[in-house]
Amino acid sequence: MTVPPHLSTRARAVRSSEIRDLLRLAERPDVISLAGGLPDPSGFPLDDIRSAADAAVSESSRSLQYTSTEGDKELRELLAQRHTAATGRHTTADDVVITTGSQQGLDLLARALADPGDVALVENPTYLGALQALRAAGIDTAGIPVDADGLDIAMLASRLDMVPAPRLVYTVPTFANPTGTTLPDERRRGLARLADHHGFLVIEDAPYADLRFRGSAVAPVATYSDRVISLGTVSKTLAPGLRVGWLIGPRPVVDAVVRLKQAVDLHTSGLSQRIVVHLLARTDWFDAHVATLAARYGERCCALRSAVDARLGDRLAITDPDGGMFLWATPRPGAAPIDARELLTLAIDAGTAFVPGDAFAAESTTHLAGSMRLSFATASSEELATAAERLANAVGQLDGRSRPKMSRGPLSHVR
Amino acid sequence: MTVPPHLSTRARAVRSSEIRDLLRLAERPDVISLAGGLPDPSGFPLDDIRSAADAAVSESSRSLQYTSTEGDKELRELLAQRHTAATGRHTTADDVVITTGSQQGLDLLARALADPGDVALVENPTYLGALQALRAAGIDTAGIPVDADGLDIAMLASRLDMVPAPRLVYTVPTFANPTGTTLPDERRRGLARLADHHGFLVIEDAPYADLRFRGSAVAPVATYSDRVISLGTVSKTLAPGLRVGWLIGPRPVVDAVVRLKQAVDLHTSGLSQRIVVHLLARTDWFDAHVATLAARYGERCCALRSAVDARLGDRLAITDPDGGMFLWATPRPGAAPIDARELLTLAIDAGTAFVPGDAFAAESTTHLAGSMRLSFATASSEELATAAERLANAVGQLDGRSRPKMSRGPLSHVR
Repeated sequence: MTVPPHLSTRARAVRSSEIRDLLRLAERPDVISLAGGLPDPSGFPLDDIRSAADAAVSESSRSLQYTSTEGDKELRELLAQRHTAATGRHTTADDVVITTGSQQGLDLLARALADPGDVALVENPTYLGALQALRAAGIDTAGIPVDADGLDIAMLASRLDMVPAPRLVYTVPTFANPTGTTLPDERRRGLARLADHHGFLVIEDAPYADLRFRGSAVAPVATYSDRVISLGTVSKTLAPGLRVGWLIGPRPVVDAVVRLKQAVDLHTSGLSQRIVVHLLARTDWFDAHVATLAARYGERCCALRSAVDARLGDRLAITDPDGGMFLWATPRPGAAPIDARELLTLAIDAGTAFVPGDAFAAESTTHLAGSMRLSFATASSEELATAAERLANAVGQLDGRSRPKMSRGPLSHVR
Repeated sequence: MTVPPHLSTRARAVRSSEIRDLLRLAERPDVISLAGGLPDPSGFPLDDIRSAADAAVSESSRSLQYTSTEGDKELRELLAQRHTAATGRHTTADDVVITTGSQQGLDLLARALADPGDVALVENPTYLGALQALRAAGIDTAGIPVDADGLDIAMLASRLDMVPAPRLVYTVPTFANPTGTTLPDERRRGLARLADHHGFLVIEDAPYADLRFRGSAVAPVATYSDRVISLGTVSKTLAPGLRVGWLIGPRPVVDAVVRLKQAVDLHTSGLSQRIVVHLLARTDWFDAHVATLAARYGERCCALRSAVDARLGDRLAITDPDGGMFLWATPRPGAAPIDARELLTLAIDAGTAFVPGDAFAAESTTHLAGSMRLSFATASSEELATAAERLANAVGQLDGRSRPKMSRGPLSHVR
């Protein structure tokens, strides 16, 4: 084509994720990457998925034919039962929509619930995919700070007293991406009260909530208000490649999302949905499987945390999460500063990788420049210890440089 | 929730498909439905899909882990080879994006290539899902008439001489939904020339193109211009429940679509993609399988067409398609008029169903009021003959009514 085609404003607004470019960098076989957000593939229950796939193919009218946009009835019933148990709110299959991963839940909600120019508040830092989905729908995003207990509800409340209420508040309250924090119960109640008082909707994204390796479950935010829309997924408990997520929310939201999804992909893979039905229906097996996964993540979390703390504890404060896949390291006040992007180039040379904290910034900010997200999900405890050693070596090299350059270009330009 | 949530303008713009409501109506077990757009489930190659699923689960890094947004490399290569063979244009994996069904291709293209208020021209009548995807993106649609040879290129050309060029032209040039028509080669060349001259992009949607049961292949419109984006799917050749489609187009379009898809669902089911790789890679098997399907559709087309023609040939002109899944019946000039919506209620009582032609209208119009789409895909030849008999009885009943009411309410209100 002689002239490049016109691209829409929204297409030009969506940039490629920096994480995506990073994942490419860390693909060198000698790199022990702490950068990915991938679950541990050795945790995929291959034999169980294979049997479930075999059974699903035989149910061809539900797995291989066109099926309903809202999703497999039996799957929605199983998820409604779990939601009722977790929240104490009576939930039925009609309150559930099956989505093509929870990423699609974000996209559908962004498009169904807000018009271009509407505002969504998000944690800062937050999950990049949520920012992408909101921005692709033309929604303006603004960040609310987080502390060691997650979203700062007092800051949110004071903002709400000053400016008009947003349309949406997006949060990952349990084992957050990227910080690993968990919102305590009283903050969850506070968030719900604010939603009811100011009339906004909360998107409670809980991809990691099942991966608890310490402490006891905190009730979902959805327990405390019917203005909360819950997003879930099997990506961290069974396998992301199935692309099965779900959305549970108020009936008018569910109806609008289903109408939109019909135009978007008709329905989610029936084969994947039926595979998940077969695995979720084996409740005892599923819960034991998830407990095994969580225990493994717990061991790895401990291994990485103690190894980084032993070598870099004077420089970095490291979170101590109760579950999930991520540690969050921030420069200790008073210690020599670290430029995480510059450190990343040295770390990759040294054979490890992480995601610089400012990659998760909800808005232009400098306070995340020294932070790093460290994933303990995919490497063994021994590899994690080696990665920590390599990271410490890279920090040593960074310190050895006479004048650190504060590079702020796109990460895709990092060698 | 005491107050219903705010829904976005786009959510309110998307109405539920009338076909969706119709499919519910025709679910009565005694109804032999000609209404659905579903492929014949007895054509799903269950044993082959089962073996492919088994092999795919074992390739867990490609089927079950997060994978690339653009899709499985091997699948894109197989599709690029087929596209090169069909169009004579050198096509590589980098020109291909795997989508969650070709419906997602429509949604992504609508969002990536046009801004709200931009215009897309479509055939009138056209595929409803395309109208839904375009309208959900805020795009204004306008219809161009079709005749027995599909899109009326002369009408399109004269419109282009009068009003500014549209951003997009959407067409199903081969065995169209709903009319079954195939655009002849000279019109394809003409459409490509108009695209090059006026600078619009053509979306060539070809879900039925492999289902040819008579005559020889016509070159895709994409053969004649690089301004054509091709959409394909395995929904009509393997199984729709896999939700695997693809988009092949100019590199800037592919890049924009991939960036948007990352925000929309990260990637299409890896398991489904690997199943399709295993089946498409067996080229001889796949081609023979599709030939068997097409031959069966050909027999059924002939059975339905001759049965309807024998009983209603004085009232209805029926198309004679070379492939696909649909017949299109229109009132003969001079014969007593038929109100297709009123006929539908009588037909369902009589035990058959079809889709009234005006359900596919691209714009408010009366010329489709007597038309009907009749699918021959899912019933046996014997059942199709019975359905034709029931349809003729319903027409008889309609004629017996003293004053036909021209009902124009939503189809969802039809009993």
